[in-house]
Order: sequence, then C-alpha cells, then structure tokens
Amino acid sequence: MINQLVQKIQKTKAPICVGLDPMLNYIPSHIIQKAFAEYGETLEGAAEAVWQYNKEIVDHTYDLIPSVKPQIAMYEQFGIEGLKAYAKTVEYCQQKGLIVIGDVKRGDIGSTSSAYAVGHLGNVKVGSNICTGFNTEFITVNPYLGTDGVKPFVDVCNEQDKGIFVLVKTSNPSSGEFQDKLIDGRPLYELVAEKVVEWGDASMDGAYSNVGAVVGATYPEMSKILRKLMPRTYFLVPGYGAQGGTAQDLKHCFNEDGLGAIVNSSRGIIAAYKQEKYSKFGPEHFAEASRQAVIDMIADINSVL
Amino acid sequence: MINQLVQKIQKTKAPICVGLDPMLNYIPSHIIQKAFAEYGETLEGAAEAVWQYNKEIVDHTYDLIPSVKPQIAMYEQFGIEGLKAYAKTVEYCQQKGLIVIGDVKRGDIGSTSSAYAVGHLGNVKVGSNICTGFNTEFITVNPYLGTDGVKPFVDVCNEQDKGIFVLVKTSNPSSGEFQDKLIDGRPLYELVAEKVVEWGDASMDGAYSNVGAVVGATYPEMSKILRKLMPRTYFLVPGYGAQGGTAQDLKHCFNEDGLGAIVNSSRGIIAAYKQEKYSKFGPEHFAEASRQAVIDMIADINSVL
Repeated sequence: MINQLVQKIQKTKAPICVGLDPMLNYIPSHIIQKAFAEYGETLEGAAEAVWQYNKEIVDHTYDLIPSVKPQIAMYEQFGIEGLKAYAKTVEYCQQKGLIVIGDVKRGDIGSTSSAYAVGHLGNVKVGSNICTGFNTEFITVNPYLGTDGVKPFVDVCNEQDKGIFVLVKTSNPSSGEFQDKLIDGRPLYELVAEKVVEWGDASMDGAYSNVGAVVGATYPEMSKILRKLMPRTYFLVPGYGAQGGTAQDLKHCFNEDGLGAIVNSSRGIIAAYKQEKYSKFGPEHFAEASRQAVIDMIADINSVL
Repeated sequence: MINQLVQKIQKTKAPICVGLDPMLNYIPSHIIQKAFAEYGETLEGAAEAVWQYNKEIVDHTYDLIPSVKPQIAMYEQFGIEGLKAYAKTVEYCQQKGLIVIGDVKRGDIGSTSSAYAVGHLGNVKVGSNICTGFNTEFITVNPYLGTDGVKPFVDVCNEQDKGIFVLVKTSNPSSGEFQDKLIDGRPLYELVAEKVVEWGDASMDGAYSNVGAVVGATYPEMSKILRKLMPRTYFLVPGYGAQGGTAQDLKHCFNEDGLGAIVNSSRGIIAAYKQEKYSKFGPEHFAEASRQAVIDMIADINSVL
C-alpha cells in the first residue's frame, strides 16, 4: 500500500494530504443552514453539514493530491450520525481515487487491537461472509502498550496490503512531556522509532515499509535524527501551517530523493477561506479557496525539496 | 462521578466491573443463529447477536454489580452497525442503574481530544441545541501525547461530572517495553502516575478524583508503588482472571479502607459457560453461568480485602 501512495505522490508531485477535520465553526453558514433546514439542529444535521462541506472540498482538490486524512474524532463527536459521515467521506474519497489515512490513533492489548485492525483496515468475518466496517488504506496507531498492542495492526497490513503510521513524535506543544524523556541518554521517541523499524521490517512494499511513523513538523531537529534512524519508514507529518511548522522545518523529514514523507494540513486547507490571504474567495467559494491553498502548499513544500 | 461509583461499590460490596467485550466466538450458537436468521451473515447480524448476548448478561448480573466496561473495539470492528450495538448497550446498562466505563483509550492533540471528550462524555453543541453522541459516565484515555492531549478530557469531566481512567501501567505482556523504561532511575509509568495526580487535583469528588488510572492486575509489585504515589486516584484494574491476575495480585491496588480500585473481568464472566468450572450451565444458560462467575469473583476479591 505504501508503494501506491508513493506512486500517487510522484504522479501529483504533491507530498501532501488534506486533513478532513471538519469543526462546525469552519463550515460556511450557507452549508450549515441548509443542513439544519433539512435535518434540524441535530446530530443528523451536523453530520449532513460535515459531509456536504467535505464533499465540496474533495471535489475541488482531488485532482491535485494523492491522499486525505480524516480525523475520526471530529465525526465521533456526533455519535453514530457523525460516524456515518466519516464512512461516507472515506468511500467518496476512494471513488475519487484518493488514498485515505484514517487518523484514529487506536491502540490496545492484543485481541482488542486485532478488532480495531479488522474494523478499520481489513475485513471482519461474520459467519461465512467477509464484511467490512470502516475501510481505510492507512490508519494511525498509538504505541504506548508496546509490541503486542501494535503487532495485530501489522499483521492485518501484511495480509491485506494496508498500512499504518505509528505515533513516534507528535506535533503538539506537550508532546515532549513523555516522548522526550531520556532513557539511557536517549529520548523515548527514538526507542519507539527503533521499534517501528523492527515492526515494519517484514512489511516492505517497494522502497518503503507499510509501517510508517507520525513525526511532527514542529520539531525539526528531532525529525532530522528520526529520518536517519528510520531510513525506509514513511513519515506522516502533522503540524504544518496552522500549528506553526514551516516548509523549512519539515525538509529533514524527506530523504534525498524527495520521498519519505507526506505532510498534512487540515485547518490551513479546509478553512482557508477564513484566512486574510484567501478572503477574496468568500464563504460561498470556500472550496476554491481550499484549492488555491493546496496549490500554494504544494509549491511551498516543493521549494525546499 | 467517582463518588457515585464508590457509593455503588459500597452498596453492592462488589468492587468489580463486567467487561462487555463480545467476541463472536464467545456468543452461544443459538443467539448467533437467531440473529443471522433475521439479518443474515452481515454486520447487522453480528451487531444483533452482540446486543442480544450483552442484554442477557446484563439482565442476569446488573443487581450484583456497580458497573460495566464495554470495550468499544469489539463493536467498532463491525462498523456503524457495531457502534449502534455499543450505544444501545450503554443506554440499556444505564437504564439498569449501572455506571458505564467506555473502554475507548482515546487521546490526541488538544482540539481533537476535545472532540472525543464531548463525543463520549459530554454534550456537543449543534446550533443552539445540546446533543449527545456516546454518553458514558467514564472513559479510558491514552496519555502518550502529554498534558494538552489529556486536559480536554479533564475539562469535560469537571464541567459535566464525568470521569476518566488514564492508562498508567497496562496489563498486557509487552506493556513494559516503553512503560517500564527508566528515566532518572524511575520507570515511565511512575512519571505518568504523577501527572495523573496533577491532572486530577482539581477534580476531587468525595475522597477520590474523577481522574483515575488504569493499573494492570498482572504487575502486583508495581501496583503497590502506584497505590502510594496516587493515594486519591481510583484504579481501574484489568488483567484479573483470563489474563492471569489473581485476587492476591491485586490486593495492593486497594487502600486500607477497601476502596480505591475497581477490578474488571471480561472473558472470565461473559464467556464463563465455556470454562470447565461452569460447564454444567451449558450454552443455553450462559447468562446464569455469568451470574455465578460474578458471585465467585466478588467473593474471591473480598477474601483479600
């Protein structure tokens, strides 16, 4: 699966994914009002607004990008109705030829991780039938429980040609609280990185492994070291744009061939129309603003590669 | 909320929760067959089997216990239909007077954790309406992202009188891989424990904090130290029974007043009829086997308090 992502990145010359993390206050009022008129100020109404918003952004950007990353929490907050909008968004993006990275950050003890893995990446057996729950190409995984919590995800990746990105060094301000703690002189995230390499060793798919890593754009010195520690691991890089990471900050996430990383931007793309820079588009043309923001982001990142 | 849990534990004299983690292979064939006859070998059929199985177990145990802990992964594996069975199970347990601990192990960066928090513990605003997604009393939270990933859950607990249990030392075999690593001579889980105390300091509800900790029954020496480090933190203790933890192993999780911990058993209760010890009940009377297993578990744990 990582090889498919690499090919799409090469074809689009766009090592980016658009983070479909629709907060209600990002969504232009004409979409909100229409959804509420139809379904009321209910979970269903919120889910409809989210779906229509996503759809328009995807329609205006899918030809430029290889991938999207919906953040499931933004859907889960609206319960079942929200998760229906998540599933619908995933399916629509796939129909448009996009690779979907479900940002779910799941992770548990062995048998439970297996259930998450088949639920999000694979197929679940029901009687003699093979069924699918949430069917994304990649998901993100939390490593705090160690190998037996991560291995079931890797197994499903190997069986079904899917992929995961394991949290190594996250982009948020307090990520260092535990992740940076020194163990025999080395930060915890480096130990996690070494495990990611080990977990992904038997999951090679072309030049890279189906077991990738989340490495935040906001800590450039650390990503430099992590790039060396994990030469065949693809990085999913959050933190660009709204969270403060610049193109200069994330150039070390890439290998010399210009591959090895895919950079996410959520708010910076999907709510671009709210920025001064794109205000000329106005809320009615929010998706055109998103398209322009994608074009600008691709140029910005390619300028440092 | 923790005070309500303590009162229910005192009333039932049962410091336990039943883990509603329904794997399809636990469910007796008469339930499976009925569900498949009605809905086919589909996600809907699986979800119906899960729901009927849960309902019968709850009907046979609710008067003995304070709490249940559904593991959301076991539902999520069946997609939207599975999650409907989760929501239905949560609601049914609450109608029966049980406190529900959603074992969701969520955790992300700030704004995303907020979405999970309102989705699982609180209310989400839709226009001028207040709606609820998954409405559990407690959830479990993963601390790997640090304070800004946990704080949004604590905020919702404080606003809505709900609670969380933060993963400190998990019960699985490889939990030590990262959690036990020494930092200035002390294991990571102790640092997490100190943070849990800090996070929960302003969330006191009676003698304990609404911010609790997950401490596995399978590591008794560690729970002894953790009990001292976190005197006012309630422990959610997985790993009893099927995972190998005994009553002796977990007595250090309790304070001297016999409070301070709630012990979970999943397979040992819900699939009790599969054990030699309870085989006389047979698959048809699986829920009576579960009731007997609950009675035995309560006696076993009380014998060491």
